[in-house]
Amino acid sequence: MYSFANDYSEGAHPLVLQALCETNSEQTCGYGLDGYCSAAADTIRSLCSAPEADVHFVVGGTQANLLTIHAFLRSYEAVLAAHTGHVNVHETGAIELTGHKVVALPSADGKVTPDMVEQAVAVHFSEHMVHPRLIYISNTTEVGTLYSKSELAALRRCCDDLGLFLYLDGARLGSALTAPGNDLTWSDLSRYTDAFTIGGTKNGALFGEAVVLVQEGVKDHFRYYMKQRGAMLAKGRLLGVQFQALLKDGLYLRLARRANEQAARLREGISALGYELSYHSPSNQIFPVFPNHVAERLASSYDFTVDAPVGPDRTRVRLVTSWATEARDVDRFLEDLARMQ
Amino acid sequence: MYSFANDYSEGAHPLVLQALCETNSEQTCGYGLDGYCSAAADTIRSLCSAPEADVHFVVGGTQANLLTIHAFLRSYEAVLAAHTGHVNVHETGAIELTGHKVVALPSADGKVTPDMVEQAVAVHFSEHMVHPRLIYISNTTEVGTLYSKSELAALRRCCDDLGLFLYLDGARLGSALTAPGNDLTWSDLSRYTDAFTIGGTKNGALFGEAVVLVQEGVKDHFRYYMKQRGAMLAKGRLLGVQFQALLKDGLYLRLARRANEQAARLREGISALGYELSYHSPSNQIFPVFPNHVAERLASSYDFTVDAPVGPDRTRVRLVTSWATEARDVDRFLEDLARMQ
Amino acid sequence: MYSFANDYSEGAHPLVLQALCETNSEQTCGYGLDGYCSAAADTIRSLCSAPEADVHFVVGGTQANLLTIHAFLRSYEAVLAAHTGHVNVHETGAIELTGHKVVALPSADGKVTPDMVEQAVAVHFSEHMVHPRLIYISNTTEVGTLYSKSELAALRRCCDDLGLFLYLDGARLGSALTAPGNDLTWSDLSRYTDAFTIGGTKNGALFGEAVVLVQEGVKDHFRYYMKQRGAMLAKGRLLGVQFQALLKDGLYLRLARRANEQAARLREGISALGYELSYHSPSNQIFPVFPNHVAERLASSYDFTVDAPVGPDRTRVRLVTSWATEARDVDRFLEDLARMQ
Amino acid sequence: MYSFANDYSEGAHPLVLQALCETNSEQTCGYGLDGYCSAAADTIRSLCSAPEADVHFVVGGTQANLLTIHAFLRSYEAVLAAHTGHVNVHETGAIELTGHKVVALPSADGKVTPDMVEQAVAVHFSEHMVHPRLIYISNTTEVGTLYSKSELAALRRCCDDLGLFLYLDGARLGSALTAPGNDLTWSDLSRYTDAFTIGGTKNGALFGEAVVLVQEGVKDHFRYYMKQRGAMLAKGRLLGVQFQALLKDGLYLRLARRANEQAARLREGISALGYELSYHSPSNQIFPVFPNHVAERLASSYDFTVDAPVGPDRTRVRLVTSWATEARDVDRFLEDLARMQ
Repeated sequence: MYSFANDYSEGAHPLVLQALCETNSEQTCGYGLDGYCSAAADTIRSLCSAPEADVHFVVGGTQANLLTIHAFLRSYEAVLAAHTGHVNVHETGAIELTGHKVVALPSADGKVTPDMVEQAVAVHFSEHMVHPRLIYISNTTEVGTLYSKSELAALRRCCDDLGLFLYLDGARLGSALTAPGNDLTWSDLSRYTDAFTIGGTKNGALFGEAVVLVQEGVKDHFRYYMKQRGAMLAKGRLLGVQFQALLKDGLYLRLARRANEQAARLREGISALGYELSYHSPSNQIFPVFPNHVAERLASSYDFTVDAPVGPDRTRVRLVTSWATEARDVDRFLEDLARMQ
Repeated sequence: MYSFANDYSEGAHPLVLQALCETNSEQTCGYGLDGYCSAAADTIRSLCSAPEADVHFVVGGTQANLLTIHAFLRSYEAVLAAHTGHVNVHETGAIELTGHKVVALPSADGKVTPDMVEQAVAVHFSEHMVHPRLIYISNTTEVGTLYSKSELAALRRCCDDLGLFLYLDGARLGSALTAPGNDLTWSDLSRYTDAFTIGGTKNGALFGEAVVLVQEGVKDHFRYYMKQRGAMLAKGRLLGVQFQALLKDGLYLRLARRANEQAARLREGISALGYELSYHSPSNQIFPVFPNHVAERLASSYDFTVDAPVGPDRTRVRLVTSWATEARDVDRFLEDLARMQ
Repeated sequence: MYSFANDYSEGAHPLVLQALCETNSEQTCGYGLDGYCSAAADTIRSLCSAPEADVHFVVGGTQANLLTIHAFLRSYEAVLAAHTGHVNVHETGAIELTGHKVVALPSADGKVTPDMVEQAVAVHFSEHMVHPRLIYISNTTEVGTLYSKSELAALRRCCDDLGLFLYLDGARLGSALTAPGNDLTWSDLSRYTDAFTIGGTKNGALFGEAVVLVQEGVKDHFRYYMKQRGAMLAKGRLLGVQFQALLKDGLYLRLARRANEQAARLREGISALGYELSYHSPSNQIFPVFPNHVAERLASSYDFTVDAPVGPDRTRVRLVTSWATEARDVDRFLEDLARMQ
Repeated sequence: MYSFANDYSEGAHPLVLQALCETNSEQTCGYGLDGYCSAAADTIRSLCSAPEADVHFVVGGTQANLLTIHAFLRSYEAVLAAHTGHVNVHETGAIELTGHKVVALPSADGKVTPDMVEQAVAVHFSEHMVHPRLIYISNTTEVGTLYSKSELAALRRCCDDLGLFLYLDGARLGSALTAPGNDLTWSDLSRYTDAFTIGGTKNGALFGEAVVLVQEGVKDHFRYYMKQRGAMLAKGRLLGVQFQALLKDGLYLRLARRANEQAARLREGISALGYELSYHSPSNQIFPVFPNHVAERLASSYDFTVDAPVGPDRTRVRLVTSWATEARDVDRFLEDLARMQ
């Protein structure tokens, strides 16, 4: 049974694990105040041309999202997100638990556009309604799509016009930055957003997300929020060590590119066999549509997510590759799939 | 300037005010533990054939909704509501502030159907998603429509099948129970729902909503929740006195019927002048569609809510009548409207 | 059975009720945006020499406290209060429900001093602890004592030195301002505090507290917070009408003075009979200590609160007078008490 | 600079790290639903003679505390804890953020007794107050002390009598179970408490706390709560793998015993030099009182926590040993200390 279910099925990339092992017996102070975290934060600031940004490290993506979003908002202020957005559908109401409504914007490709934002703001005009204040986007999105530089710039202008914050969930940022067609750079992230995350969990770390706070107003209190919500790791240096390893010599992007390449091979192979793919994803999540009987037979040898039925006879599934996916795993899947026709 | 903006523009019905004046100098204990509240609760239990129900009185509808809904739910459990539902759009995120997602169900007539519920439950299948647990409905709805007995019974069955609670917001319950075509009785409310409210604010009281808890599991702690959220009125007897006055000799339904009748006269007069009405509301809120210039001219003599543009040239407005609306107010409006053609 | 249990046993003062009756049939817009509320806010701004202050009206004291305190604080910021403070012991954890710890400061007389504040701040020095940010005081306190002008000024300086906000709960402000020995004026409230309330419920209104926001930073969002927590009254004008009536021709202070005078007569009579009084309260709450058998016999004719046992043989009770307490009620109590010796 | 500042200065014990390395390339499903977590849960159930208990693994202690406590309580229900308890002073108000008051019980030795509980329950008698519902204890306590079996049994009886839950924070459970004088067994934990944790972070893991839910009522929803609060680790197996390694062949207790032994050597050496120790702690945290100048000189070579001044001339510090503390580290400290006399 091989799993294409997600990009966090394995542990860490060997170089990350090695860094953890090499530093294991050192004594450092706790809670992310150690030298490794501070060096990793410096690396990120430099990488993103954001010398003034604050960088914090947390264990998981839901933590990163709920902490960052809550730090920006007053209780009655709301998040605008694509209806497919992780904060809207896959965090068990984590944002609502912090008191904030997530206003879901129907989106065909998982992305938010200025038009969608303007319409949502227009219908929330009174103090009897929540006040939209922050746009949540993810890159890549939950359906594998990418934001272009011009799309991100347009959202930034929209935010400036309407007094909104822009937050980018980068759980799969590596995959986005290395996808064919991407024209965003690290620096664009700090240029266009108020805060963003750099995902480690899905790209080679045991765990860990870097939260990059660009906006001044939100910086002062973040560690208090972290501690109060149980998001301050005692041995915080584990996060700094891992991010240092990931960001050294371009490993982070190299791993993401590898995942994208295997996804591209899967995509091409599946297309060549005549199956449709939804969402035009150039990244490490692809969404082929198989006849039900093919999806069922695949499920006996491969682990993957069933996304949704497509009519009575077909099923859309999600296949995810990672830095750990080998070419031979893809080959075998395609061979098996070919045999099922 | 006459106002059709809502059904709470005036104070209380004279009989309610008189009851407050007559009891004003009495000493009672505070916080709703007085004899008036307990008598009003008995009256309601008897009226609704719900001898085992708990009845609490709170000052306003948002309080009633957030307290009752929260009392039923664990933090990760969600509310299902029509997208037009008061808790979804007009309470500034009050439900989310208690931690719960409101899953908005698109609805053409402001009502929730078992089909809509089943679909929403079906897509929330994992512990990474909120768990739908309570259906919020209002009667009349925010667009003036009614639930029939068979519709309510169907929702009850749907709740039983799916393990959901059914909560009915009766802010305009009087209008519902006295609308042409209604076949619901007081007793049906306790028979089919787990909790419901009886609105006083919009039907003759200075303020006040009765919360009727039918479901056993939710009864024990309600007063603690009330106090903790600032919803326990010091001179609680004011609520009991008002509800006793309203429920005496059928005053409550009489007032609601009067509001409905004036709305019907408005509706008929507006139709007779050739204007369309949205939503087929038989109750005290009507939604005529006027040419923009008519809507604007009306606005110079009448207060009402502009609901939404209908194409480029027309505007849907909301007109609300109340127990205090006089036939002559309706007559004058219709005359003025006729003159504007 | 006559009740000295509290100062909200009766309804409203006749002049307040009359104002409600006289305005009852008027149409106004809802939610406190009417002319009565705006006139009452002007009156309060003028009375307190605070032309820039924002004034909001809510129904009850717990609402006023939780809304105001929450508006000042980030989630990890804490309230400092006397251990007897209403927010610490008598609001069922309302402040904690908004996320904030109340740090209880042991206090012999119900008051907070700069020393107590400095010590509390000193021991909260790390991001692993809550960050004290607001001092809650009440005047009169829960044990009937008063703040002098110099005490309030000293707390203000302490707040300025330590970066704290000062919030004064004026549920019994009338009693404080008219108590023998008081040297505070209305204007001192806006001079020394960041926010304060003026209590109506316990001084002649049916219900209602005015929240006066002096501090700039907290002003912008208050109505959203009110609505989101169910604290925006539909017929908001009821609050404006009542406060206008109370503040007209000095009625508010006149009523409070009357309550204090009857309390003074009680106090003197009880002392004359040889019983001790705790807390040196010059206001409308007094705390005599009776032998247990006396307390028990009194309880058969009078309603009052049993505060605490004092040793095995005596009981401290609380007696509260109000604007509605008549001299003859006090006389009869003292006569009955004399007979019990 | 050697650190006695805490027991989480280093990474993981080599055997734990080795287990992580050996399993690193395996694919498992995420979120703790893998075989390692389920095996570790079985091990714990068996160890604690609690075949029916539910076991969950979370990353940190504050997460474990806030999740577990919140799962037991309704919003107005409160926690009783020693004033020194971690949830009261060292979690930045995490419990309050979940809505619950922590009622602090003054305690000379960091422990809670039935007397203290009964008194606290007695003064919370009304619905205007929070309702004490759960006792939080830690073992060892924050000042290094232990609960005996009879003390724990007495608290259990007290809980049964008063309708309270008993929750034991075992962040330093290993140190407790291996301290001289301890008479508690693993099985006593499930016998006497409703829930407890087994701390990994402070005893050889990179991170991780096992939450053991004994009480039936709280079991069903825990994973939803975890996810909603960002406490569900994507690569959940990391927790299972570590706990399996720690619990294999008694490693967990062996590591804790080693920490205790080095603390005992420190304690004896410090006593022999004539210095007082506070709190009679037999475990891995000790609290010597040094003259200020000694404390200051020590601080130039050793990292430790300054606990509090003891009069004008002396300082109480906290020294913590761990599984990683070597005998030679203790020797050197004692030699340095001797030289400072």
